[in-house]
Amino acid sequence: MSDVYILGVDMIKFGRFPEKSVAELGAEAAQMALADAGVSIQDIEGLWCGNLMQASNMVGQQVLQQIGQTGIPVVNCANACATGATAFRDAWLSVKAGIYDLVLAVGVEQMGKGLLGGVGGRKGIPKEGLLGSATMPAVFAEAGMEHARKYGTTFEQFAKVSVKNHHHSTLNPKAMYQIETPLETVMNAEMISYPNTKLMCSVNVDGAAAAVIASEKKAKELGMGRAVRVKASVMTSDPFTERDLVMPDVNTCTRMAAKNAFEMAGVGPEDIDLVELHDCFATAEILHYENLGLCGDGEAGRLIDDGDVALGGKTPVNVSGGLLSKGHPLGATGIANIYEVSTHLRGEADKRQVEGAKLGMTHVIGLGSACAIHILEKV
Amino acid sequence: MSDVYILGVDMIKFGRFPEKSVAELGAEAAQMALADAGVSIQDIEGLWCGNLMQASNMVGQQVLQQIGQTGIPVVNCANACATGATAFRDAWLSVKAGIYDLVLAVGVEQMGKGLLGGVGGRKGIPKEGLLGSATMPAVFAEAGMEHARKYGTTFEQFAKVSVKNHHHSTLNPKAMYQIETPLETVMNAEMISYPNTKLMCSVNVDGAAAAVIASEKKAKELGMGRAVRVKASVMTSDPFTERDLVMPDVNTCTRMAAKNAFEMAGVGPEDIDLVELHDCFATAEILHYENLGLCGDGEAGRLIDDGDVALGGKTPVNVSGGLLSKGHPLGATGIANIYEVSTHLRGEADKRQVEGAKLGMTHVIGLGSACAIHILEKV
Repeated sequence: MSDVYILGVDMIKFGRFPEKSVAELGAEAAQMALADAGVSIQDIEGLWCGNLMQASNMVGQQVLQQIGQTGIPVVNCANACATGATAFRDAWLSVKAGIYDLVLAVGVEQMGKGLLGGVGGRKGIPKEGLLGSATMPAVFAEAGMEHARKYGTTFEQFAKVSVKNHHHSTLNPKAMYQIETPLETVMNAEMISYPNTKLMCSVNVDGAAAAVIASEKKAKELGMGRAVRVKASVMTSDPFTERDLVMPDVNTCTRMAAKNAFEMAGVGPEDIDLVELHDCFATAEILHYENLGLCGDGEAGRLIDDGDVALGGKTPVNVSGGLLSKGHPLGATGIANIYEVSTHLRGEADKRQVEGAKLGMTHVIGLGSACAIHILEKV
Repeated sequence: MSDVYILGVDMIKFGRFPEKSVAELGAEAAQMALADAGVSIQDIEGLWCGNLMQASNMVGQQVLQQIGQTGIPVVNCANACATGATAFRDAWLSVKAGIYDLVLAVGVEQMGKGLLGGVGGRKGIPKEGLLGSATMPAVFAEAGMEHARKYGTTFEQFAKVSVKNHHHSTLNPKAMYQIETPLETVMNAEMISYPNTKLMCSVNVDGAAAAVIASEKKAKELGMGRAVRVKASVMTSDPFTERDLVMPDVNTCTRMAAKNAFEMAGVGPEDIDLVELHDCFATAEILHYENLGLCGDGEAGRLIDDGDVALGGKTPVNVSGGLLSKGHPLGATGIANIYEVSTHLRGEADKRQVEGAKLGMTHVIGLGSACAIHILEKV
């Protein structure tokens, strides 16, 4: 089966845009991705749209109304924090299947400020269900503390993740924040759920990102100069049964997905030049170093101490600023990650460029729902 | 590219189940489809779930919790009345792409009684937007009256659609209603929006349906005895721009989809042995006879008068009872249609069997959003 390519990809600067509609935000990113690919909406054969919070409202069709109602199929996908990546993946499937040659994936979210609802407290999900009513900060604090108890990981090491990602975001004009946060500032910020202070929690923002996905045939026709090859696209969900769980497992579905992704791409973690991973909390990033195979179990603390995961290190992680500083508009995040990695593979990341990047990985996880990993390759 | 097959498909009896959760309803249908295919959830590599009204709530993952958390990818799709068909289609794409050999599509909806909200009145969609605040009954009444003005279609002809579909449903134990409704009863029922009386409007019910979709390789391995071939799977959306619209167009996206579906399947309307089409209102069924090519423009009134679309006629339509009598649980409808057609192709439709059915068509349309058509073939 022939390869599938990203021909255009972009994102709006993340921020707070209460004066705009979710459709306007999505349309803006869609237009940018189309322009980046050098195509028009008339060339597009299908649209997959990821949006979580207005998922019953046909956001994809609203976006298409804004950019041109050409009569193409529109699919709306929702998958917790993996919403955008899910839309991208189903769009990818349609090209991989040989049904379409050129499709568009859009991820968009308009969020309020402040804490998201408890995992088990969403409308329609019984509170006494699988995940109880643990809040996201509580779940990721406990997961971090488990790592600390097992491997001696320190508060300072967790905090360094946030220092790093905030530093990265000072080099990314599309990040929500461009502010250095020294270690002391991070550690002394308001404690949300130990060991994560407020500066170690991802930022609720509005955002949108989009990608134009093409068959090999179409990519050759339109020009492969800036194309990015999709080497692997995998998803998993939480593999446990109710009986096995005290707190939700934040590791296993990522480990499964990473294994599948490396197999599909025919590469290993040592081949990856940069990673955009799901740092919804600083503790989560530490766990995912190990879950994604960037280091062995128990070595994540050393990895952040040694600077291996910082820009200039062996495998820079979240050079965009990550969810911690670029921001985390749920439905947009998956495609924003793909934008970031693609930008490096194209050599267009300016001040934050990972030099010589040939292979990159994106990772998102919707807790208890879905993990999605993509491995992208410079053409 | 090799063919894709339906190996198992089933639906729960549609009705009102306020005591059950949406996940329980979906899980029930999923288990039935798995049993029908003779496989277990352990054999399934991916789940696509269609649900509209709780689309932000990860209904697919809730279903998987009930039937076995195996760690497979779960995707949630929402697409107005085409929600279930969309989930089926994205699942089909994953097999067509060669990524999976055996996947599950589930459609489920738990609905209140009474009138759905206005088209433009849904949360997050500006009321002054594309479709104004016209209610669904108003839109389909006007579309029927346009047909009446143009072709002389009568109130009686529209009403006969409902008489036919209610009669069909007396032969379908899974329909919400099994009651004969004579022409006088239909015409004298409470007028909702002329020419549609209450008995000419689809029924809001709870329901769920599911299908097991397989690659050719897997179908051969598991046995092709009762398999159904997916000959075409197409989608379109509303092709117009705001300027062109006074009332929403309920015809064009179906015409586009039908053309594409016949092309993909390499057949014509004359080859189709039965059709499950989107009779959200009696007027809609009349329009779709022409939109799907079952007759020429202006001939739909004759078609219902002559009994061509009744069981025993040339091309029976909505032998299940249709949305008018079987019921219309939005997210479930697309897959329930696929269940009905598959059951006839398998020769298992008992009293309502369309004799010798070899090729069938399903059609759903989410107004202003999505039209999906599938053509299925007896193996």
